[in-house]
Amino acid sequence: MKRALFRRHGDPSRVIEVVQEPDPTPGPGQVRVRLKVMTINPADLLSIEGRYGAEPLALPATPGVGAWGIVDAVGEGVSRLAVGDAVLPVGGGLWADTVVLAERMAPKAPAGADPEQAAMMRANPATAELMLTDIVPLAAGDWVVQNAANSAVGRLVARFARDKGLKTVNIVRRDGLEAGLHADGADAVIVDRGGDLAAAILAATGGVAPKLALDAIGGAATAALAAAVAPGGTVSVYGLLSGAPPQVEARDLVFRDVRLRGFWLAQWYATASADRMRALQGILNERLAQGLSHQAVAARYPLDRVAEALAHAGQGGRDGKIILTAE
Amino acid sequence: MKRALFRRHGDPSRVIEVVQEPDPTPGPGQVRVRLKVMTINPADLLSIEGRYGAEPLALPATPGVGAWGIVDAVGEGVSRLAVGDAVLPVGGGLWADTVVLAERMAPKAPAGADPEQAAMMRANPATAELMLTDIVPLAAGDWVVQNAANSAVGRLVARFARDKGLKTVNIVRRDGLEAGLHADGADAVIVDRGGDLAAAILAATGGVAPKLALDAIGGAATAALAAAVAPGGTVSVYGLLSGAPPQVEARDLVFRDVRLRGFWLAQWYATASADRMRALQGILNERLAQGLSHQAVAARYPLDRVAEALAHAGQGGRDGKIILTAE
Repeated sequence: MKRALFRRHGDPSRVIEVVQEPDPTPGPGQVRVRLKVMTINPADLLSIEGRYGAEPLALPATPGVGAWGIVDAVGEGVSRLAVGDAVLPVGGGLWADTVVLAERMAPKAPAGADPEQAAMMRANPATAELMLTDIVPLAAGDWVVQNAANSAVGRLVARFARDKGLKTVNIVRRDGLEAGLHADGADAVIVDRGGDLAAAILAATGGVAPKLALDAIGGAATAALAAAVAPGGTVSVYGLLSGAPPQVEARDLVFRDVRLRGFWLAQWYATASADRMRALQGILNERLAQGLSHQAVAARYPLDRVAEALAHAGQGGRDGKIILTAE
Repeated sequence: MKRALFRRHGDPSRVIEVVQEPDPTPGPGQVRVRLKVMTINPADLLSIEGRYGAEPLALPATPGVGAWGIVDAVGEGVSRLAVGDAVLPVGGGLWADTVVLAERMAPKAPAGADPEQAAMMRANPATAELMLTDIVPLAAGDWVVQNAANSAVGRLVARFARDKGLKTVNIVRRDGLEAGLHADGADAVIVDRGGDLAAAILAATGGVAPKLALDAIGGAATAALAAAVAPGGTVSVYGLLSGAPPQVEARDLVFRDVRLRGFWLAQWYATASADRMRALQGILNERLAQGLSHQAVAARYPLDRVAEALAHAGQGGRDGKIILTAE
C-alpha cells in the first residue's frame, strides 16, 4: 500500500512524500478499506505548514480527512459491513490507498452517490450548512453577505441559503462570475473594486442590513463586512485568505454592537451532540442526492503525484477542488 | 443662567461656548434644578467631535449626562420632590448651571453622598460593574485581564472584581502604578514594554487563561488580549485610545473560538429592563456608600472655563477626572 506523509512542517509540496508499506490486516471489529478518492482541503495545507489549530499528535503524520473507498477485508466480529461496501471513513490520515479502521469509523456511503462528491460532503457542505444555522438565528427573507463568494464554500452558501429562503449578497474580486453565482441562487453579486463596500452592500439589499456576514479573507475585508451588518449583527471569520488579522472599526463594535467570531468545522464536530450530528448528516445526504452540494473538481492527481496536487491546491484562482485518486 | 453648547462638530475646546439665558420656570410636573457639579466623560468629547455613536438630534447642542444639583423651584403637581432636595438628573444637556426637567427625570441623590462622586456614579462605575456581569458568565476565582488599567474605569474594574471574588491582571504602560493598583485589589500588574504580552499574562495568572478581556485601546492591543484569553473567551472593546481598529489574529477567532464584541453603556441603559436598571442602581448606591466607586478628581473648572476644562480632559496621562462646577 501507499501512504502520503510529512516528517516536518513546511511548504506542503516540498515536505510531502509517499511511502510504500505492506498491506495491513484488519483485526477484530476492524475493516480494511481501499480508498479510491481522497480530498484536499485548505485545512490539510495549513496542517502541513504547521499553521492549523490542531497539531498532529506526532510526526511523521499522514493528512487527509475526506475519502471514499471500498471495503476489501473484514476482521472477526464485523457485522454491519461486508466486502464490497462503499464507505466514507471518519477521522484523519486518509491520504493513503489503504486504511484499516474500526467498523464504526466507516459509515456506508450514500447509495449511488458519486464517489468524489460523497468524499467531499463532510467538509465544505457541512461548513456552508452550519454557518447558516449555528452562528445567528436567521429567518426566511433575512440577508447574509459573504466575501470570496466564488470559493467552493461560497457557492454552497449561496445555494443552501436559497434553499432556506435566505437572501445573499456575494462579493467577488473579478468580473465574469456573476452568471454562475446567480445560477447558484445569489440574490446580488458585487465585484469589489476597492470602493465603499458597505454602501454597495446596502444598495444591493435595498437598504436592509444583513444579520450575518461570512468572511474568508480577514484584514480590512472583515472591517468592510462589519460596517455593513445590522446593529447587533455578527461577522464570522472562517478563512485566512489575506493572511492579515481580521479587524473591525471600534465604532462598529461599540456603538453598533457588532460581534466578531470564528467558525471552525473541526471544533463543531468535536463538540456537537450525537443528535445534532445525525441531523447534519441527514441534511447533507439530502443535499447530495439533490445535487445541491455539488462541487466542481479542477483536477485529479494519483496519490503518487501528491506533491503536484498540493502545489496546484495552493494556487489562487482555481475553478474547483483538487482530488487525489488511488491510481 | 449659563449653558455650554457647540454649534458645529470639531475640537471640543475650540467649538464649545457658554451662553447666558433667562432663568426657566418649571411647568406642571417639572422641577428646576441648580446644578452644582457636572461631569466630563470621554463620550462627551467624542460627541462634540462628531465621533460618537449617537448624534445629537440637532445643533446647537448642550453636552453632559452626569450632574448633581439642588431643586430650587417646583411646578404644579410635583409631589415627590421639594425645594432643597439634592438630585441626580437623568438625560442629556447637563452642562448648564440650571435645568428644568420632569420630576421623574430627577431621582434623589443618595443621602449624604459626596456631590462629585454621586454625579459620576452612573457612568464609569456602571461601566465597570456591567462589564463584569453582563458580557460573559464569571464565577469567583475566574481571571479577567484589562489594559489601560490605570484609567478611572480600570481602577473601578479592579476594585469591583475583588469585591466579587474575581481576579484581575492589569496592564499599564508605565512604572510606578503597581502599588496603587494592588491597593485597589489588582491581583497582578504588568507593565507592557512591547514584549510577549500573552505570555506575560499567563505567567501572571499561573497559567490560567482569563475568560474575559477588557480592551480600551484597540489595534494590536486587542490582538494581544485575544491571544491570552481562554478558548471560547471574549474580548470586549469599550474604549478607543489608540484610534486603530481592534484586530484579532484569525487563528484565535477560528481555532480558539475567541469572541470580539463591544460594550457601550448608553446602549445598555437604552435596552435594559426596569428590573435590571433598579438592580444596577442598588449596587451602585452600595458601592458609593462603601467608597468603593470613588474616582480621583484631577481638576475642577467653573462652567465659564469649560473650554479649558475640555482641553485638560483631552490630555492623556491625567490622574483623575475633570469636573465642571457652577461657580
